[in-house]
Amino acid sequence: MSIFEKARELAVIQSSAAVIGWDQETYLPPDAVEHRAAQLAWLSSHAHELATSEAWKHELEAAQAANPGDDPKLTANLRELRREFDRATKLPVELVARESTACSLAKHAWAAARIRSDFAAFAPHLETLLGIAREKADLWGYSGEPYDALLEGYERGTSTAAVAELLDTLRPALRETAARAVEKSASRAPSLPPGPYPIAAQQRLNAEIAESIGFDFRAGRIDTTTHPFCTTLGPRDIRMTTRYDESDFTSSLFGVLHEAGHGMYEQGVPGEDFGLPSGTTVSLGIHESQSRLWENHVGRSRALWNRWYPKAREYFPQLAEFPLEKFLAFLWRAEFSPIRVEADEATYDLHIILRFSLERRLLNGSLAVADVPAAWNESFRELFGFTPANDRVGCLQDIHWSMGGLGYFSTYTLGNINAAQLFAAARRDPAIAAAIDAADYAPLLAWLRKSVHAHGATLDPADLLQQATGSRPSTADYLAHLRSRYL
Amino acid sequence: MSIFEKARELAVIQSSAAVIGWDQETYLPPDAVEHRAAQLAWLSSHAHELATSEAWKHELEAAQAANPGDDPKLTANLRELRREFDRATKLPVELVARESTACSLAKHAWAAARIRSDFAAFAPHLETLLGIAREKADLWGYSGEPYDALLEGYERGTSTAAVAELLDTLRPALRETAARAVEKSASRAPSLPPGPYPIAAQQRLNAEIAESIGFDFRAGRIDTTTHPFCTTLGPRDIRMTTRYDESDFTSSLFGVLHEAGHGMYEQGVPGEDFGLPSGTTVSLGIHESQSRLWENHVGRSRALWNRWYPKAREYFPQLAEFPLEKFLAFLWRAEFSPIRVEADEATYDLHIILRFSLERRLLNGSLAVADVPAAWNESFRELFGFTPANDRVGCLQDIHWSMGGLGYFSTYTLGNINAAQLFAAARRDPAIAAAIDAADYAPLLAWLRKSVHAHGATLDPADLLQQATGSRPSTADYLAHLRSRYL
Repeated sequence: MSIFEKARELAVIQSSAAVIGWDQETYLPPDAVEHRAAQLAWLSSHAHELATSEAWKHELEAAQAANPGDDPKLTANLRELRREFDRATKLPVELVARESTACSLAKHAWAAARIRSDFAAFAPHLETLLGIAREKADLWGYSGEPYDALLEGYERGTSTAAVAELLDTLRPALRETAARAVEKSASRAPSLPPGPYPIAAQQRLNAEIAESIGFDFRAGRIDTTTHPFCTTLGPRDIRMTTRYDESDFTSSLFGVLHEAGHGMYEQGVPGEDFGLPSGTTVSLGIHESQSRLWENHVGRSRALWNRWYPKAREYFPQLAEFPLEKFLAFLWRAEFSPIRVEADEATYDLHIILRFSLERRLLNGSLAVADVPAAWNESFRELFGFTPANDRVGCLQDIHWSMGGLGYFSTYTLGNINAAQLFAAARRDPAIAAAIDAADYAPLLAWLRKSVHAHGATLDPADLLQQATGSRPSTADYLAHLRSRYL
Repeated sequence: MSIFEKARELAVIQSSAAVIGWDQETYLPPDAVEHRAAQLAWLSSHAHELATSEAWKHELEAAQAANPGDDPKLTANLRELRREFDRATKLPVELVARESTACSLAKHAWAAARIRSDFAAFAPHLETLLGIAREKADLWGYSGEPYDALLEGYERGTSTAAVAELLDTLRPALRETAARAVEKSASRAPSLPPGPYPIAAQQRLNAEIAESIGFDFRAGRIDTTTHPFCTTLGPRDIRMTTRYDESDFTSSLFGVLHEAGHGMYEQGVPGEDFGLPSGTTVSLGIHESQSRLWENHVGRSRALWNRWYPKAREYFPQLAEFPLEKFLAFLWRAEFSPIRVEADEATYDLHIILRFSLERRLLNGSLAVADVPAAWNESFRELFGFTPANDRVGCLQDIHWSMGGLGYFSTYTLGNINAAQLFAAARRDPAIAAAIDAADYAPLLAWLRKSVHAHGATLDPADLLQQATGSRPSTADYLAHLRSRYL
């Protein structure tokens, strides 16, 4: 079996685990959890075995040696397979197993600690996971600082310093925009008319809008979970989920628009290359750019609601007395919340700036785990002007650290930056801009397919951005977008 | 790894394939079919490889050699693992692959031939599959006739001659009961009041009744498919499906009661032995006995509807003017249909008698494939008194042969016979009978758990029956049941 056949086999195994994982989140009966864990463990151990095997290495090296170098896709595929193989094999099996156990324990400890707002109960677990993250960083290697090695796994080809520079540029501008947006919103943002907004009607509206922006339901579906997500079960099998609030239909809808953005990216990478880098999405920062583009630039636009608000009023008669202008003001409301996942566009990245700085200091040793709550609260007050009421809504709010996900948060803001830059670039084509303004998104999607999706993971994210938009990641378009929407 | 650890690993793989297969039937997006086939193929090839490996054989033989013989469960587990291993390894890989290809082709050909009622188009495929079935029978070996070797895979420890004897006993009695039931029904059976019977209300009623008879929804669920089925995704994860007809709520309900019978059996075998014979259901004839017991002996009983008809009337107000007696007459209606899957209790086994006889003759060479339509129609007229209008509703109606499922049909009637025998035996306990008559099924289920489910596959079906009811499979209780219900 060639390395490409092996890579496809690996994708078959991993996508089988994805089916089983999806079912676990959507339809699993309560008592089935234990056996489900055994099924997932079996598949992931087989996937890991295959991807780190001597046979894999042998075939990969044979293909590298035989590569004439005149086919950029082939060269990129071999280069990326090599990068993944090296990252996977640099970690000893013992470390991977130790991390998995530590994460299981940490997740339980975090959930309990959060309920009781008891950071001290979580601190030893964070200490352990931080130690493991540093070990991994050392094994993977880095030129600047440990955060670099972790970031590389989520956003290859970038550096902590580059991310820090972007966030440093954003910080003062964001603080100003956010403060003014929140002030304006406090005096003007209306409440949505009272529910119920029946779930069946929400589901119809969500599906119609998702289909109209280009999500292909022949190759995907929407189900219900507590936390919305999107997962890929095969090249033509993209499942997203959302949750329903009968008092606010926009909650499920914006969940769907966000996940549909992820889903359309997955549906847009070359399906015939499924399992190869050229048939895979490239990074979290690019993935998040697709979800945020459709959620915020399209989903919260006046153009979309010019077209869809009449339909929403058909499904939800209580909107009859709620003018479109008020609805838009509702969508564009801004407020300072202690909770990241509830944050609006105007304030979201302040949460990320805080986390990025803390993680970086934790990893380079300039912040001790015991000092996290104080550092969090101090930083929060600086950015938001108040202190969270307790650690539950402060430094214990996110699940990421308990899953070993250090180095991850910054990709959310990279996604926001990339989304704005891609959207602005697409709009420079007058035909695309005119279509967007008429709520016809086929030309925009075609542009994204060609400029982003078609490349799979053959280009580094920053090179992809450069090629698609003419410049490296930059905050200009994003700040312009926020100012135009909120000020 | 011991043979028992290996057997559990095999069960993890096979149950993973079951998750993926269940999703394929319930929620798969249309374009995802191709990749799904690759996932299933990968898992089944790994399962097959493991279950036929030298390492498996070695561990099995080591365990057999080390067995002191003083633990009946251990001895039974080793014996049955050996039986399965021998059956699996007696077939060369080439034959298994050839059969798989032949079935794929035959299934497509059958579907097309059925639509056009064109037996000649299907005949060459049936010829091929019949040849393969004979090859398999020769490789497995048999003492009487080829049908024995196939039957052994579905109903171990029985023989074609024993089945033939049961069916020969049934045949005249069934013909008489069926004819009288149909005659009576023609003059008396009412129609259900017109729909719609809303699907949401059907779902609530079905779930309530299924739960009340003992299906455990912590370890299972109901979804929707065109053809109802029940599948096991883990020891505590039993999924059943049904289909909805808005003009007749009993269609989905009896689908659920039938599948719940299968499901309660799966929920009742010892979960801690999942993957071992002692934690597995034993045969199709015993499986079908559980589904038919709950569907027909319980589900179509006056006692159940004394309790549940008021609830059905709450959900479906149009039943207010439809007295319980009429509803029962509706449930007990009988008619001669050319189609097996539409047949009622009174006429069902006539369909099986016909198929059993034809299959047996096909396998022993006394019936040529080309003569199947004529033989079918002749036999059908003898049993039912009329000839099917065409082969579509005659010899082309069932999917089984196109899937290589020869030797399978007879287990449906074994199921009916076993169900009646078990139900009658349970009722000999006055406390159980009294509870059943009060629509309290906990004592009946407890008896089935103890008498049938708890044994897993450690006893041959006929021995299981003997132990549970005091006698070998016999038609007496079944005929008594049919006469009491229909005459």
